[in-house]
Amino acid sequence: MPAVDTDRFLKDLNDLREFGRYRTGVHRPTYSQEDMESRRWLMARMEEAGLHAEMDGIGNVFGRHKGPGPHLLVGSHLESQNQAGWLDGALGVMAGVALARSGLPVDVVAFADEEGHYGSFIGSRSLIGLLEEEEIDRLANKYHGKPLRTALREAGLEGRPRLRLDPARYQGFFELHIEQGTQLESQGLRAGVVTGIVAIWQFRITIEGMQDHAGGTTMAERRDAGLTAVRLLARVDREFPMVCGPRTTWTCGRIALDPGAPSIIPGRAEVLFQFRDIDPAVLERLEERLTRIVQEMNRTERTVSTLEAMSRSKPAPCDDGMQEALARAAEKEAPGKWQRMPSGAGHDAQYMARVMPAAMLFTPSIGGISHHWSEDTKPEDLALNVKILAEAAEDYLRRSNKAP
Amino acid sequence: MPAVDTDRFLKDLNDLREFGRYRTGVHRPTYSQEDMESRRWLMARMEEAGLHAEMDGIGNVFGRHKGPGPHLLVGSHLESQNQAGWLDGALGVMAGVALARSGLPVDVVAFADEEGHYGSFIGSRSLIGLLEEEEIDRLANKYHGKPLRTALREAGLEGRPRLRLDPARYQGFFELHIEQGTQLESQGLRAGVVTGIVAIWQFRITIEGMQDHAGGTTMAERRDAGLTAVRLLARVDREFPMVCGPRTTWTCGRIALDPGAPSIIPGRAEVLFQFRDIDPAVLERLEERLTRIVQEMNRTERTVSTLEAMSRSKPAPCDDGMQEALARAAEKEAPGKWQRMPSGAGHDAQYMARVMPAAMLFTPSIGGISHHWSEDTKPEDLALNVKILAEAAEDYLRRSNKAP
Repeated sequence: MPAVDTDRFLKDLNDLREFGRYRTGVHRPTYSQEDMESRRWLMARMEEAGLHAEMDGIGNVFGRHKGPGPHLLVGSHLESQNQAGWLDGALGVMAGVALARSGLPVDVVAFADEEGHYGSFIGSRSLIGLLEEEEIDRLANKYHGKPLRTALREAGLEGRPRLRLDPARYQGFFELHIEQGTQLESQGLRAGVVTGIVAIWQFRITIEGMQDHAGGTTMAERRDAGLTAVRLLARVDREFPMVCGPRTTWTCGRIALDPGAPSIIPGRAEVLFQFRDIDPAVLERLEERLTRIVQEMNRTERTVSTLEAMSRSKPAPCDDGMQEALARAAEKEAPGKWQRMPSGAGHDAQYMARVMPAAMLFTPSIGGISHHWSEDTKPEDLALNVKILAEAAEDYLRRSNKAP
Repeated sequence: MPAVDTDRFLKDLNDLREFGRYRTGVHRPTYSQEDMESRRWLMARMEEAGLHAEMDGIGNVFGRHKGPGPHLLVGSHLESQNQAGWLDGALGVMAGVALARSGLPVDVVAFADEEGHYGSFIGSRSLIGLLEEEEIDRLANKYHGKPLRTALREAGLEGRPRLRLDPARYQGFFELHIEQGTQLESQGLRAGVVTGIVAIWQFRITIEGMQDHAGGTTMAERRDAGLTAVRLLARVDREFPMVCGPRTTWTCGRIALDPGAPSIIPGRAEVLFQFRDIDPAVLERLEERLTRIVQEMNRTERTVSTLEAMSRSKPAPCDDGMQEALARAAEKEAPGKWQRMPSGAGHDAQYMARVMPAAMLFTPSIGGISHHWSEDTKPEDLALNVKILAEAAEDYLRRSNKAP
């Protein structure tokens, strides 16, 4: 039985919270000074825990176990969204360090830029060979436009080699993360064994109408792109519940009307819309419905709406054996106080799942808040879940190596 | 019968077009170098036409007839929206100069900043005593933030007195303007006698929900401010046609979702909404319906919507006698090719109507385009309408002075 030092684990998490501290959360954008300092601090913690630590050319921090295998890989990410929470990512990385310190044969990883300041999962994709140099050339910070190459140079990462995982080294990948929702909290549960990570299908709907003076143009004459956006989204609101799955979510995060002035009929509208589900059949059904609604708008409105798929990720089911190990440990440590559930958010685990068995464990999120500085989880839930993770890791390793 | 020199009128208009020329339109923001040069050019044209010209402390250019009255006031504005049309405003000012040159007893005015770069009708309001020094202290350019006081100093206007109209001097105010819509063009008409200027009631609807992660939050848990905005505007779209008047217009020019990211449920939405009508009863009915819809949203949605009236202008009916004079002249010059119509846009005439009889005449707008550099009107329609205006002015003056 590994003895996870939960006090030391909580102290490490709180020490890490000082890098870029913002109110009760952190502001640690990828490759910022605060982010790079936290990466160097992590390397020191890894070395203390007996790992060989290095940082690679995309900013991934990797702590390699020095003893014999079979090994597990455990980790998450260190950077945060802007003015966001102290646990999102940090929890999973420090859980990995806690497991390594307890003597388990784990490598620990902090993937760079899971939060997407520059790209989409560039750290985890780089580790499995899915990030080309050409993409690095092309990417830039989505908030202030700094090219990724410039950021890497300023962070002192230019010229360093990028690490590649050897999947054969691992029995699997575990990631501990906050739920980022209220499903656990609202049912009084303390742990969530993740069944899989939903796919996110992301669309841009562009509507072209005619910009006109709001006073001089009668209602009948108008080609109002904003009004089409409202009618289109109202149809989605009515029709998606009839074709979605039990856990589907859909979100319109942005409606931009151009020029956006009170007395000008919008000549152009841009809508960002996404839906998430773990079932490919549901995802395809929703895209078909969205396509039909856009086509219908082009029949009924005096505007031209265009639907453009920006990205369609793949659902990533979690490994059955790893889920079972997590479920046994959860039932032992918190009997009746855990459930199985999908992850509605994307995580680095979805890329690890492409090259090895992978699984995730969720802690409750107070009020479901995440991507905000007030994000938090009770310390007893943090401690409980790192114990569940350690037990599951040991259990899974033992069973894997007994298996025929 | 006054002999309006329509060739000279068209030449003047085209000369004025060179100040801040932008493609086939003009870029002449209020108090810019191009705008001030056009004002000084106008003063020279006024003097040539026998008027006494001066520019006042807010930038109004005023040309005073030197002979005996009774007088008319004729004018509009010189500055343009950014990268906008060559006729919006300029047409009405140069029509005034053309009438003065023909010998009619008219004063000509170019009101400053009708286009609202710094405020709302500050030129015309200043002339009738509705612009306080405190408001001038407070105003700033809505595009780049320069304080109005700074702009006035840089334009050389600081310290000049502001002129005040003597309404007793005038029988009325005429303004010739482009329609800024397609009602004349689509019916093959060449002139519009304006019945009044609609009121604009402008609202801000603020919706407070809860910002959340688009993956971790189930549909049932959400408090999506953007979705409430869509549902609210969809109800307006369904219900306003049942309570509006025959010429009512309503416009949502901006929907801002906060934070506006694809994977974040909007925690806050701001909607700019306005409606316009000439009938106070219709305006009140529409505001009551909007209020009810917002209240209903607060009963049915898990968000808090607040309706805030930003401004409620007054409808400005045009003077009957002046309308009749315009109608007679239009029927004489373009038999069967004119109509009566309200103005959906605001104009300086609405402030002049507060202190004297006022009326407006519209020329067709090609394609209804305005507030865009491609705005245009056929030269024969420009010439026709300045003739109608001159005849109507003479007719109206003659009848006014015969009346008991």
